[in-house]
Amino acid sequence: MQQPYDPSGYRALTFHDAVPRFLSGEDTPRAYLERCLETIAQREPVVRAFVTLNPEGARAAADAAGERYRAGRPLSGIDGMPIGIKDLLMTADMPTKMGSPLFEQNFPKQDSACIQALRAAGAVVLGKTVTTELGMSHPGPTTNPFNAEHTPGGSSSGSAAAVGAAMVPATIGTQVVGSVIRPAGFCANYAIKPTYGALHRGERLSFSQSHLGVHAGSLADMWRVAIEIAKRSGGDPGHPGLFGAMDLHAPVKPTRLIVMKAQGWPQTDGATLKGFEAILDDLRGAGVDVVLPEENPLLAAFEDAIAESLEICRDVCAYELRWTLENLVAQFGGGLSDSMMSRLALSRAMTIDDYRLVLAKRETARRAFAAIAGLGEALISLSSTGPAPRKDNDGIDSGVSHTTGSPAFNAATSVLGSPAITMPLLAIRGLPVGVQVIGQPHTDDRLAGIANWITGHIRARSV
Amino acid sequence: MQQPYDPSGYRALTFHDAVPRFLSGEDTPRAYLERCLETIAQREPVVRAFVTLNPEGARAAADAAGERYRAGRPLSGIDGMPIGIKDLLMTADMPTKMGSPLFEQNFPKQDSACIQALRAAGAVVLGKTVTTELGMSHPGPTTNPFNAEHTPGGSSSGSAAAVGAAMVPATIGTQVVGSVIRPAGFCANYAIKPTYGALHRGERLSFSQSHLGVHAGSLADMWRVAIEIAKRSGGDPGHPGLFGAMDLHAPVKPTRLIVMKAQGWPQTDGATLKGFEAILDDLRGAGVDVVLPEENPLLAAFEDAIAESLEICRDVCAYELRWTLENLVAQFGGGLSDSMMSRLALSRAMTIDDYRLVLAKRETARRAFAAIAGLGEALISLSSTGPAPRKDNDGIDSGVSHTTGSPAFNAATSVLGSPAITMPLLAIRGLPVGVQVIGQPHTDDRLAGIANWITGHIRARSV
Repeated sequence: MQQPYDPSGYRALTFHDAVPRFLSGEDTPRAYLERCLETIAQREPVVRAFVTLNPEGARAAADAAGERYRAGRPLSGIDGMPIGIKDLLMTADMPTKMGSPLFEQNFPKQDSACIQALRAAGAVVLGKTVTTELGMSHPGPTTNPFNAEHTPGGSSSGSAAAVGAAMVPATIGTQVVGSVIRPAGFCANYAIKPTYGALHRGERLSFSQSHLGVHAGSLADMWRVAIEIAKRSGGDPGHPGLFGAMDLHAPVKPTRLIVMKAQGWPQTDGATLKGFEAILDDLRGAGVDVVLPEENPLLAAFEDAIAESLEICRDVCAYELRWTLENLVAQFGGGLSDSMMSRLALSRAMTIDDYRLVLAKRETARRAFAAIAGLGEALISLSSTGPAPRKDNDGIDSGVSHTTGSPAFNAATSVLGSPAITMPLLAIRGLPVGVQVIGQPHTDDRLAGIANWITGHIRARSV
Repeated sequence: MQQPYDPSGYRALTFHDAVPRFLSGEDTPRAYLERCLETIAQREPVVRAFVTLNPEGARAAADAAGERYRAGRPLSGIDGMPIGIKDLLMTADMPTKMGSPLFEQNFPKQDSACIQALRAAGAVVLGKTVTTELGMSHPGPTTNPFNAEHTPGGSSSGSAAAVGAAMVPATIGTQVVGSVIRPAGFCANYAIKPTYGALHRGERLSFSQSHLGVHAGSLADMWRVAIEIAKRSGGDPGHPGLFGAMDLHAPVKPTRLIVMKAQGWPQTDGATLKGFEAILDDLRGAGVDVVLPEENPLLAAFEDAIAESLEICRDVCAYELRWTLENLVAQFGGGLSDSMMSRLALSRAMTIDDYRLVLAKRETARRAFAAIAGLGEALISLSSTGPAPRKDNDGIDSGVSHTTGSPAFNAATSVLGSPAITMPLLAIRGLPVGVQVIGQPHTDDRLAGIANWITGHIRARSV
């Protein structure tokens, strides 16, 4: 089953196009689910995307969805959609192990707000997907669906791999640094990390820049899952939630796109840069003005303002994770990885003034981003510095281990709280690399329209 | 023991003035604690401030503090201070029952961030104080320490009553509408509801306007507890945390104080208004310019902007509490009070656009408050519409039951996220009523200086 990524041959699993057949009776959500379970049976022994599967619960939910379609009354555009949930979020019918042996027995019997929304929309919660330890660096067992020697990325490892292996049409991930967009790029997903606060994180509010995101095999499914959640459980407390219509925004041809180099550019390998520049040339050929940061002093100032994004993320995460880690150390004495213990050491060395300084830097970066809003409809960038590294790499980046790949193209968007959408537009040596577009906060829907135009007009490239 | 409130005769328990005797060896934290336990033994049968007490754990902590004083090396200005914790917050050594039978067996074995900070500062965590159901309306068993027929206020019922009964020198409370300032006023406490986000709420982040606050028998202890927490566990994720020096700010005589009438003024009884106006006259007599909202169009516009604060709070709380309540209903089927079920019904009727509208109104109120920053150093207002009502009242206010008293003078400061400090300056028919000062966000320390000046220059009044 495992094959190198070939954009022209690869077929992801989609759901939106199955709905008419559910309504006409040619297909059923149950049959769709059984096909997912067959793919999982074939691929899961190598890919290892799931921590827990609940096929019987899923079959019951799919059958109930089938009844609704038969009656012509589906609950939503994702009624009957099998979906995987990153194992940091609570599901009432499955444990929440958070990628840590300390939570092996954790079974809260509650649904996170987004899970309540998904069930209310009729989605079929099929299983919990592998996360790195507490959503940080220490990797889980998942492998890249296009080459098992390579990482699927993290921390939403299983969510990205399950979609990449066509096991399910969509999964839920979370991102605090680069945990949705990077693994999605490594696994040929479409994915959205929405505006900060746009999708309710439930109990996961202890990070001031964590986001709930959606991985999918198509832009249409990606958008639909996101907006169906927002319609029902809204955004984070105090936030207005994801704005937009229920259907994916019609294609929007951008007049001008701004290249974001961020901290990733100098780390990017030659083949990936070559592929990205070919994409930019294709955009120019299609009549889009592509602006480089060095062409405008405001853009150069913006790049300066995001030039410490990895370090900001490292310090924000360390400080904000401290109280959780102190409790785990007090309660269990051990059981945290070396990389997690080094985060704790970092946070213990931080004072409140250190934290205030990093918040002020983050705010400065956001102001610099707001200042360039008039220069182009969106930013465009790579989703990673290259294809997924081998699983046995020992990559150390900005003081924090990144064996699941460098988030050097992702940290800025997490710092900015801006929406980012990745598209599987590159194949580098047989592995997927994503290209992302990035918008101003609360422009998620129009950004999806830009992504919709790009995927309709720009051919994916192999290098 | 129970006596009507007489400001000239009442003595609250203080801690800061005991510290020199700990250092000199005349007194010890253990002896101080034993005196607290004696008061608790005398008064707790009627007052019922505590859900859980941990005297043995407290004795061990007090003895350890005593060793540190003997060695001349206390950990902080609150080393050895016995403190009560509102039973919404987690303590590793006691259950967290949250005023609900559904959490009777809840024992998370973890410390909230602020509890970690208090322990690191050497404070003696003596017990968990009674809260209303999940910090909302449905009352617990606590009675007002000055008249057991009356409510202590809520939701920080036990925290306010424990300080009012001189059982402990300080307690931790929380406020999402009026849950610190109002009960503190009803129980003759000093208390601070700091700037939104200034003290880390730990796992209690699911409300976008919830605050951690401190009740105490003196301004000095109130400030010290707050700043010792902030120094160690900081503010909420993404917030800079409480600013200020370790000691209570020196007295600051305000040039001009602005009266805030809010939604409480028309509900206030005549005796309370008379007492408050006497306080304003005393301030004028001391050379402070006291400005009424009708004297300046900006102030009138501010009053207009906060005129729906109770309704904003009601809707914000309902919408943000929904996911928690849905899980409890799904898990337990029953066990929530009627008032809680009416909140759930309200939240189920709200759409995301309803919530967005209430957030926009909140933002408008904050802008109107920022616009008056130059008109005076602080606002001054009552902390409640009168003394604590009888426990058997059936007060309904703005669609939500308030048997623990109306938060009509408190909702605005919760909406604004502004710091508020209450002082026990009035006795109305033998029951305490607080007077509060309110500042712009992040001016908590200077606001404490203003409160310090007022309590030094304005005599408490009995009506």
